[in-house]
Amino acid sequence: MAETPRNLRVTVWNENVHETTQPEITAIYPDGIHGAIAAGLRELLPGAQVGTATLADPEHGLDEATLAHTDVLFWWGHIAHDQVDDAVVERVHQRVLAGMGLVVLHSGHFSKIFRALMGTTCSLLWRNEAERELVWSVSPSHPIAEGVPSPLIVPHQEMYGEYFDVPEPDGLVFISSFDGGEVFRSGITYRRGLGKVFYFSPGDQEYPVYHQSEIRRVLANAARWAAPGETPQHTPQVGNPARDWFVNDTKEVAG
Amino acid sequence: MAETPRNLRVTVWNENVHETTQPEITAIYPDGIHGAIAAGLRELLPGAQVGTATLADPEHGLDEATLAHTDVLFWWGHIAHDQVDDAVVERVHQRVLAGMGLVVLHSGHFSKIFRALMGTTCSLLWRNEAERELVWSVSPSHPIAEGVPSPLIVPHQEMYGEYFDVPEPDGLVFISSFDGGEVFRSGITYRRGLGKVFYFSPGDQEYPVYHQSEIRRVLANAARWAAPGETPQHTPQVGNPARDWFVNDTKEVAG
Amino acid sequence: MAETPRNLRVTVWNENVHETTQPEITAIYPDGIHGAIAAGLRELLPGAQVGTATLADPEHGLDEATLAHTDVLFWWGHIAHDQVDDAVVERVHQRVLAGMGLVVLHSGHFSKIFRALMGTTCSLLWRNEAERELVWSVSPSHPIAEGVPSPLIVPHQEMYGEYFDVPEPDGLVFISSFDGGEVFRSGITYRRGLGKVFYFSPGDQEYPVYHQSEIRRVLANAARWAAPGETPQHTPQVGNPARDWFVNDTKEVAG
Amino acid sequence: MAETPRNLRVTVWNENVHETTQPEITAIYPDGIHGAIAAGLRELLPGAQVGTATLADPEHGLDEATLAHTDVLFWWGHIAHDQVDDAVVERVHQRVLAGMGLVVLHSGHFSKIFRALMGTTCSLLWRNEAERELVWSVSPSHPIAEGVPSPLIVPHQEMYGEYFDVPEPDGLVFISSFDGGEVFRSGITYRRGLGKVFYFSPGDQEYPVYHQSEIRRVLANAARWAAPGETPQHTPQVGNPARDWFVNDTKEVAG
Repeated sequence: MAETPRNLRVTVWNENVHETTQPEITAIYPDGIHGAIAAGLRELLPGAQVGTATLADPEHGLDEATLAHTDVLFWWGHIAHDQVDDAVVERVHQRVLAGMGLVVLHSGHFSKIFRALMGTTCSLLWRNEAERELVWSVSPSHPIAEGVPSPLIVPHQEMYGEYFDVPEPDGLVFISSFDGGEVFRSGITYRRGLGKVFYFSPGDQEYPVYHQSEIRRVLANAARWAAPGETPQHTPQVGNPARDWFVNDTKEVAG
Repeated sequence: MAETPRNLRVTVWNENVHETTQPEITAIYPDGIHGAIAAGLRELLPGAQVGTATLADPEHGLDEATLAHTDVLFWWGHIAHDQVDDAVVERVHQRVLAGMGLVVLHSGHFSKIFRALMGTTCSLLWRNEAERELVWSVSPSHPIAEGVPSPLIVPHQEMYGEYFDVPEPDGLVFISSFDGGEVFRSGITYRRGLGKVFYFSPGDQEYPVYHQSEIRRVLANAARWAAPGETPQHTPQVGNPARDWFVNDTKEVAG
Repeated sequence: MAETPRNLRVTVWNENVHETTQPEITAIYPDGIHGAIAAGLRELLPGAQVGTATLADPEHGLDEATLAHTDVLFWWGHIAHDQVDDAVVERVHQRVLAGMGLVVLHSGHFSKIFRALMGTTCSLLWRNEAERELVWSVSPSHPIAEGVPSPLIVPHQEMYGEYFDVPEPDGLVFISSFDGGEVFRSGITYRRGLGKVFYFSPGDQEYPVYHQSEIRRVLANAARWAAPGETPQHTPQVGNPARDWFVNDTKEVAG
Repeated sequence: MAETPRNLRVTVWNENVHETTQPEITAIYPDGIHGAIAAGLRELLPGAQVGTATLADPEHGLDEATLAHTDVLFWWGHIAHDQVDDAVVERVHQRVLAGMGLVVLHSGHFSKIFRALMGTTCSLLWRNEAERELVWSVSPSHPIAEGVPSPLIVPHQEMYGEYFDVPEPDGLVFISSFDGGEVFRSGITYRRGLGKVFYFSPGDQEYPVYHQSEIRRVLANAARWAAPGETPQHTPQVGNPARDWFVNDTKEVAG
């Protein structure tokens, strides 16, 4: 695996509702889904700083200071999308446009932040019958696919099927099939502003998907891929420059 | 030029503020920018039904019935973006996702509807010094470029320059350069839901751009390209189908 | 379905070896695979001129005159790729770059012309066990998907699976899954020069795929999509123009 | 700048004809264009092994052993494209498909290897009048654009203009404009097989472009971007696996 950027700072956000209200889910994720994801990232990205935040935290744990020190934000949500404060969503949105990476997981396809970034309904087909999911790599040299078996086998998962109503991805990394025959674009990349966005669909709360080593590899790869470069980050701004503004100002960096 | 789909129904929306408040703009566009665009479309798309709507109309002229009978909506706005009612924007958004084409023009890059569809700031550089704009086709076999000279010369135009903060386009049709040396991705396509979206930047209110025959050709091409097919239109929906739902239901159409 | 361009001229090329040497294939395609495809196109594109050509014809039936009068060429080949003359391949290649549409079918992924246009190995996984193929539309508003059910069910087909070594498609229209769980990008579009290219994988000689009405609909849609516009066609040329060459020459068309 | 992968191995290939036959070019590039490029890479990629090879070397310096130990190959050619042996081109082509990165520079657009990878004519407009080239970043968060000013100003350069007959790029990083008003997609990325390809147009032999620090930054960024991951490299292969081949073989890596 490629080297981890120095001081990569990751925040794993999770609504953390199923795990705190349904004992059978607690049994699968005793530390919460965020805890399992963070454990996997810490294991595979030894130099990284990995923190967590949840819906119940003040400002959902996504205050300005936390976001300012986050290179890549992971997002897991499902039954509490509507409880996420619009102001926090807007804050996350602005940070993505300014360069923060965002990795949206599974049912996060319907989160406010993902829908705001996509501009579409993000609807899909689903069926929860513990079908086997096969995750095929269709871009084997993509950094997110590195070291990931193809197919990656998820023994039991909720089915997500097409038509998945998202914009044409910039990059299509994974396509999944399910026992029932449905297919799904399960690993897709986008650029929004200066930020990189990756959506990865495996990971329902009822199955121990985030304990699976190959899945953790995908998430670690995604964290490194989505991290911003060393260029100072900022939200793209409107400008009204004079003719030849660049002649004596070639140090200015794009965007 | 390819044949116009039967009964193509176009609505040209314009905020119509400059033309009604600034005599020098009225002189350029006595029938409003919408009037000039509509005239160009009627000339080049003889079979089409071309209507207009403006900010001052009830519901901005974009009530449910009008949108339900619109195949392609053109959008020109500039100083009154904030006066467009959010409910109307949401209605247009849903219609685009359900298949209506949308052609966003010039300063419409900052309109509520375009920003909602893009998920980005849509910011750019600008300078209004009547520079010559050269519009180069980089996808000469694209239907929107058909019959359009390359370069298409706009004698005097407001400069729009990169970085243009939009998602990676699905299709890049035109790139412009300006006297000052700036470049701009001036003709770009997107798919959002079942709807096709085209952004075309030439067209400031201070210059007679929409009276130019080559520009009218681009707009007519765009109307035909953005029109939905004959498949019944609908917003993509979430679904929870049983295993093998498709076996006895092969008549169902995608999306 | 959208209207057929006036005088659309299609040539269906087939190596026609299985059908003339294996009685069980002849039984499926008594008029050859080309005959079945041509019949489907004639049925769905009543205004079109649909001809056929085969490997055994002089110059494989693809002489200069035939190609010059072909808007869209369909290509089916399998066991005789190597018998296709390089000069004919080069002639077809040049015609594609000059604007002719090309629809490559099934085992044509390994044809000389497709590999030359792609620049990759075009390799894939395959298994011939009469599995059911489900063809899912992931771009439901694409002209090639119009009126096509999703999934389109092919009861028995050879399996084609990823990794399919082709360049990132310009457009991904269909993804297939098979009984064995493999997936395949089964409908993909490219632009090469001024020509449009569509690859569609269903269609092994051992199964009556080209007699299936939904498959015929895809092929008819593809013929219309791949057809060039009315712009005079030519191969893109290198040029060494003087400064301001375009000032008095705005009639010149791009490409 | 991101860290350089351990042991990045770069080979800079140059036909080296202008520099050895035209004194005025020798004056600009006393160590050859390859020498200048290699010096820039060594400066900015301190951990990398940077070698050079030229047309006059046995097998053009691109024997099997050299290519087997090359992660990224840079290619500069102009007047001697036809003197490059087809067998060497084929060898390079296979190495790219197996994962080697390739950075094609300036007049290399007409090289055999680039045309083979693109499948198009790669033609363009050109004019050699020492015009200023402005290189604008349109993907500011792309790794190749990191730390590069926008615009990057090349004081004097040969003009390259659209229509540039290449396939739709996977990524558009830079667009250039010239004094004469032409534009050019001057920094574009492709994936071919497992290999990453970057074309960058600035760099005519008559101007000291490769001595410019911002240009060197682009080339160093490109070397790191195009380098393969740690996954063992191989050319994608056709396969005929049995049903369920993956069930007991989940260690197999994609591609």
